[in-house]
Amino acid sequence: MELSIIKIGGNIIDDETKLGAFLDAFAAVKGKKILVHGGGKLATKLADGLGIRQQLVDGRRITDAETLRIVTMVYAGTINKNIVAQLQARGCNALGLTGADGNAILAHKRGVAGAPGGGNAALGSEAPGSGGATPAIDYGYVGDVDAVNAPFLTSLLEQDKVLVFAPITHDGKGQLLNTNADTIAQEIARGLSGSFETSLVYSFEKSGVLLHAEDESSVIGRIDPSYYQELKQRQVIFAGMIPKLDNAFAALRSGVGKVIIGRAEELPQLLAGQSGTTIVQ
Amino acid sequence: MELSIIKIGGNIIDDETKLGAFLDAFAAVKGKKILVHGGGKLATKLADGLGIRQQLVDGRRITDAETLRIVTMVYAGTINKNIVAQLQARGCNALGLTGADGNAILAHKRGVAGAPGGGNAALGSEAPGSGGATPAIDYGYVGDVDAVNAPFLTSLLEQDKVLVFAPITHDGKGQLLNTNADTIAQEIARGLSGSFETSLVYSFEKSGVLLHAEDESSVIGRIDPSYYQELKQRQVIFAGMIPKLDNAFAALRSGVGKVIIGRAEELPQLLAGQSGTTIVQ
Repeated sequence: MELSIIKIGGNIIDDETKLGAFLDAFAAVKGKKILVHGGGKLATKLADGLGIRQQLVDGRRITDAETLRIVTMVYAGTINKNIVAQLQARGCNALGLTGADGNAILAHKRGVAGAPGGGNAALGSEAPGSGGATPAIDYGYVGDVDAVNAPFLTSLLEQDKVLVFAPITHDGKGQLLNTNADTIAQEIARGLSGSFETSLVYSFEKSGVLLHAEDESSVIGRIDPSYYQELKQRQVIFAGMIPKLDNAFAALRSGVGKVIIGRAEELPQLLAGQSGTTIVQ
Repeated sequence: MELSIIKIGGNIIDDETKLGAFLDAFAAVKGKKILVHGGGKLATKLADGLGIRQQLVDGRRITDAETLRIVTMVYAGTINKNIVAQLQARGCNALGLTGADGNAILAHKRGVAGAPGGGNAALGSEAPGSGGATPAIDYGYVGDVDAVNAPFLTSLLEQDKVLVFAPITHDGKGQLLNTNADTIAQEIARGLSGSFETSLVYSFEKSGVLLHAEDESSVIGRIDPSYYQELKQRQVIFAGMIPKLDNAFAALRSGVGKVIIGRAEELPQLLAGQSGTTIVQ
């Protein structure tokens, strides 16, 4: 059975009209489906309103206790429940989840290299998004995924529920953890690829992987491992796109059927393979 | 099969130590169980922090758009997810829900008498908590419950999930609604009494219904309809307790097995009938 796991980013969530149009398209997607949403600017706005200063290191938010409280409110509360209610209004039987709910996604707090009890071993070389590029940083209450509860998610999908995930996990010891939404989408796709024919869609601001960085019409329709090597050698793909594609290929190696990268506004076309970039084994 | 539906109020939620002790006791409750939590002072604190003034009429919060945003964040986000994570840590497979999730609880926005499209008819004489005592008030985004999705909740309970409800519902048209937690607990109990032998526990600050208002040791152990009439005639029961007990008897008439009122700190004793007041048909 086919399962689409679709990740939407903040730019869609922050724009009510765009979000509405996206949810129309998402509600119309055939077959089983899961939506994973990011955070958007709402968390930063709330923190500003409360006079809480957000720490950012290399563009990444440091999740201190106050920030965890805020992202839990905004991601699991405001954004998740509004998306669920809006999908219900579109005849789509949505159910909102964090990783804590039904123990859907178990994670551990990311370790700090050099600190007692931390170290690279704790980071886990398989954990996407951990990277280990700046190991001396304590990201705070950030979770790296250990396990996706595939039987639980499968049973909900078999009961025709459409799952909507907020990017929050837990450690099984009572601690909620802020977790990268791209990573959650990928881990869910990997975890469920044994039971479903999975498509993983990453929607972002661009039309897909571009042959010429500034030319939105130069989308590469299809990338397989040998073409990826060629594109890297020609330096068509570089910087921020490399970890994204490395993650996509890692997902494919763990059984995910295909990974599609493109614009949320073009969701039906992305799933039909008429738009965006499809990454295949 | 036995099902306990337990409502905890704000005084427990606001106190971390009390909440922890309550969750220990709740995790130990045998059989199927559902927890319904209220809001506590966190929502007011957040509103104050953001400089949003809360309107209160007759001690009831008016849920304007800003307040709805806040209660959605605090109830469905902070409180619900922290309780779920803490129950998971206690080996209790909790799943947090609002009424929007899986269309668990459908409600309608409470009408305003005298306003076009509103009127007492819209209030619904059966809707607990609506009362109709002050019909000229627009409570804002407040929901009166229309339907509990019993098949959905039953299927989750049969999969050994422990359900944790935040007091938020939806209208099926994309609108979230703030809904009284006592009412949610009662409607769930009524909705599930066809499939389970239900006990409905209202925990609050007092030890139960008291024979002498100021004497906590004068708890009335058991009240049936004829004793209730007697207590009302003797004016032992009056004011705020009457709607609570009227609701309890209404629940019993709709098939709920028993209603127990008492202290959250005494949960095991309440369920064992050794503490608090048990209301029976």
